[in-house]
Amino acid sequence: MIAEIVSTGDEVLLGDILDTNSRFLCEQLKLMGVRVRQITAVGDEVADIGTTLEKIARRADVCLVTGGLGPTLDDVTALACARASGEKMVLNPRALETMTAYFKKRGFELTRENKKQAMLPASANVLVNLNGTAPGFFMFWDQCWFFFMPGVPSEMKPMFEGGVKPRLLDIFGLKTKIFIERLTLFGLPESRAGVLLQGFENNFPDMRLGFRAHFPFIEVKILYTGESNTIESLEKKMTDAREWVVLRLENKVVSLTGQSLEQEVGLLLKEKNHTLAIAESCTGGLVSNLVTDVPGSSDYFLFSAITYSNGAKETILKVNKKSLEAHGAVHEQTALEMARGVKKVSDADWGISTTGIAGPSGGTPDKPVGTVCIGIAGPGIETAKRYTFNFGTRAENKKMFAAAALEVLRRHLMGHTPSLIV
Amino acid sequence: MIAEIVSTGDEVLLGDILDTNSRFLCEQLKLMGVRVRQITAVGDEVADIGTTLEKIARRADVCLVTGGLGPTLDDVTALACARASGEKMVLNPRALETMTAYFKKRGFELTRENKKQAMLPASANVLVNLNGTAPGFFMFWDQCWFFFMPGVPSEMKPMFEGGVKPRLLDIFGLKTKIFIERLTLFGLPESRAGVLLQGFENNFPDMRLGFRAHFPFIEVKILYTGESNTIESLEKKMTDAREWVVLRLENKVVSLTGQSLEQEVGLLLKEKNHTLAIAESCTGGLVSNLVTDVPGSSDYFLFSAITYSNGAKETILKVNKKSLEAHGAVHEQTALEMARGVKKVSDADWGISTTGIAGPSGGTPDKPVGTVCIGIAGPGIETAKRYTFNFGTRAENKKMFAAAALEVLRRHLMGHTPSLIV
Repeated sequence: MIAEIVSTGDEVLLGDILDTNSRFLCEQLKLMGVRVRQITAVGDEVADIGTTLEKIARRADVCLVTGGLGPTLDDVTALACARASGEKMVLNPRALETMTAYFKKRGFELTRENKKQAMLPASANVLVNLNGTAPGFFMFWDQCWFFFMPGVPSEMKPMFEGGVKPRLLDIFGLKTKIFIERLTLFGLPESRAGVLLQGFENNFPDMRLGFRAHFPFIEVKILYTGESNTIESLEKKMTDAREWVVLRLENKVVSLTGQSLEQEVGLLLKEKNHTLAIAESCTGGLVSNLVTDVPGSSDYFLFSAITYSNGAKETILKVNKKSLEAHGAVHEQTALEMARGVKKVSDADWGISTTGIAGPSGGTPDKPVGTVCIGIAGPGIETAKRYTFNFGTRAENKKMFAAAALEVLRRHLMGHTPSLIV
Repeated sequence: MIAEIVSTGDEVLLGDILDTNSRFLCEQLKLMGVRVRQITAVGDEVADIGTTLEKIARRADVCLVTGGLGPTLDDVTALACARASGEKMVLNPRALETMTAYFKKRGFELTRENKKQAMLPASANVLVNLNGTAPGFFMFWDQCWFFFMPGVPSEMKPMFEGGVKPRLLDIFGLKTKIFIERLTLFGLPESRAGVLLQGFENNFPDMRLGFRAHFPFIEVKILYTGESNTIESLEKKMTDAREWVVLRLENKVVSLTGQSLEQEVGLLLKEKNHTLAIAESCTGGLVSNLVTDVPGSSDYFLFSAITYSNGAKETILKVNKKSLEAHGAVHEQTALEMARGVKKVSDADWGISTTGIAGPSGGTPDKPVGTVCIGIAGPGIETAKRYTFNFGTRAENKKMFAAAALEVLRRHLMGHTPSLIV
């Protein structure tokens, strides 16, 4: 089965936007066991789109097309399709009906521009758009099933899910089962993860590993697509594969279920019914922002102090003026007193702290850009440690520092020693 | 002049990565006055790559190809090119030489796998890779100049800049001058910006507007590409165009130079030699994180308190217990006392505050998810105001709330009344 994807629109060819639609469709087709043969991006020209589609009609079994279904003059996909396939453009009553319903629900009248959107090739079947005005459509042309969807991702994705996918499964009799497990890693580069997991395919020949980096994290996907196994044997297979992977990655796995580090920390705090306070210097609010990105974080997060100035460190966190004078702001002792101070002032179970140099300036030979001291104060624990990372940019250093602080906390919550975080 | 782009590699077709290379090349060619006609993504198959290139050789003037130049078996672009163009694969002495030099500099020996990378089509000319092992190459085939570059963006981009771009300018005699101005907008959707700026092309027929949304901001690009004008007349033209745009967008422009809102706020604070403190509730550290993303922000940013709990609002910010009991945490009075409190405790010139409901839960009919109160305390100013945004997700609400707080501050720093922020 040969599948192709066509993305229409000048925005992609002008470099104004990234073609995320094609990537989404590739991922979706992969999950259905279908491999995409080619992606083509063409501009809003009737002739270009027509030529592209005509060739595909002869060589592919299915083609997913996005874009060019809107109300304006540069939306020409339906027209290009009709001209190239030799069909007439007709007012599609079903398209008009769904558009009228969409507008009515919102209290608007259909405009003349919108009516243009209901003009489709004669043999087209409508794909309902629940999230916008442009109807999609599908048709069989030469050797190939064509599915036309809007270019706006929030309209295209539900149309694929609700209208295209079931028809593909039906037309091509796809029965593939898909199992995916996700793990979240921290503390190693993607290339190192690949090396550690070499040999996976020899042990699990019908499975595949996928890696995706979201700095400073890596997501590992364990993917099985096949038809023949029972659910039980598949679950056993997935469990074996996951264990094989976890064994080789040891303490780099921060989530066995693909969750974010801050979600894992949140779950552990909830489980223990513990509360958290944060003292940040170099991370400037990023640790707190991550922690509070988790819905329900108000159950365990109490307070953060972002103390850029030494004055704030002393006044709010009661960091000893002498410590600051003796060691400077970037020091284990300062980090320790910050963690202790924020825990105390907010009466939390845990206090964590960061103080360091995110750059681009401010580094010294002794404490270069990328130096961070992370402190932690919790039930029976008070400690701080210095790390040196260097990823060049201020933004990346902040991300690395924040992740390291949360990972130190996670390991303490798990009861592990946090000596090996990177 | 017809230009095409080809991206090779299974990763894109499997949906594992986004094709950012093609977008970069489209942008670069646009800046040279060249419009890309088509982008094609194909997998690591000799036949597929060959067929694609052969067609392009007949119809295009220039084709930029990325990917498939590495040392492993699935890197087949050079082979596919040789087979389809009927050339022999030969060991290219210049390629071998640049690779040997690259390895020597790093203290490594060339491996057999790497030597494969120096096998190129007979008529190929080497493009030196300063950032990796894979040499690029270019050749004239049928009607078309082909440039082959590695798929790793950090290798491809400098090779384009140093090796491909000068040759394109030379071969095609491109002399286009490019002028771009950028503005940053806040407080209106992209579609609204487009409507407000309708008629631009009638007034400035040789210029173009581009829009890019970075929620909750919009970047507007004013683009001129042409050959004939003097620098002076071009600058006048750009100034006129910018003034035309700014007039229509009024107070939605947060930066006349395409900077971020937090950068603009930083510049204004530095200019006045003023300091800033922040009290955050619902934004959970995001405002502080944005402010401290700006290098040098330690010059004006002193302290933030992220007070999720009422206890922390009272203890640290001295918010009146009675205010909290009477109005709740999400109220103008609370926002006002938070701003006043954080200004006072850190002895800053300005205090700003956020308290609201980011969701997904916690909303009431009276104060739905999306409600935020923003307070500000500064020289001779103490005020707070309630806004209701609703963008559905917790993350988007946080971004909107944070941007609104910074925009209120920016307007006060500019001496404007902040009544019309959205």
